[in-house]
Amino acid sequence: MFTIDHLGIAVKSLAAAKSIYEKLGMTVSAEETVEAEQVRLVMVPVGESRLELLEPTSENSTIAKFIAKRGEGLHHVSLRVPDLVVAVEKLKKDGVRLVSEEIKVGAGGHRYVFVHPASAGGVLLELVEAAH
Amino acid sequence: MFTIDHLGIAVKSLAAAKSIYEKLGMTVSAEETVEAEQVRLVMVPVGESRLELLEPTSENSTIAKFIAKRGEGLHHVSLRVPDLVVAVEKLKKDGVRLVSEEIKVGAGGHRYVFVHPASAGGVLLELVEAAH
Repeated sequence: MFTIDHLGIAVKSLAAAKSIYEKLGMTVSAEETVEAEQVRLVMVPVGESRLELLEPTSENSTIAKFIAKRGEGLHHVSLRVPDLVVAVEKLKKDGVRLVSEEIKVGAGGHRYVFVHPASAGGVLLELVEAAH
Repeated sequence: MFTIDHLGIAVKSLAAAKSIYEKLGMTVSAEETVEAEQVRLVMVPVGESRLELLEPTSENSTIAKFIAKRGEGLHHVSLRVPDLVVAVEKLKKDGVRLVSEEIKVGAGGHRYVFVHPASAGGVLLELVEAAH
């Protein structure tokens, strides 16, 4: 079963960006800082998915560089796949460009890879699998 | 209940953009042309949401202009809200900028408005409600 795990949205100000979702009556999580990524974030649960609003905490963070280059907006789409190893093998065999060929392990033990936007219609596509 | 109805992704070539989802084993709909919007599209169901890949059929289409200006990538996020009239009234009262203040009726009778990216962290946010 495939689902949209989350949408990562790069913003200059969490306070400003989360306000629209609060006005709509949606639940917004408390702010959380992820030092390794140099971001502060809130999560907005929406059905089986989440919006992840990302504010840079340093000029050197990936998100700060993205905003400097492209402005605020969608940074990545995270797709939950049934079997990440199978998915990555299939994509590599078909010549799909991955940002890094190695499966990485993120916060909470979830495993992920990023497909390069050139192979996904201009979208930075993260593939994730739940921790087993 | 809020859900992500769909993500609209502007692409130069449907054939190229849909290939990654086919390789992952996802279902991709047949191509369909929407004359009014000057686009050809395919839908990729993903859990309770869909990815909508949009290829312009004319240089004058909104999607063609978007690609010329920003390149391929995410064009809009469509959020399904429980009550669109209530949502729009609340947003207007709070000074949120809408692309058009009037609720429009699209294909299949669904009602929608667009929130301006300036009010939604750089994301063109569509709010939709199912036809009753």
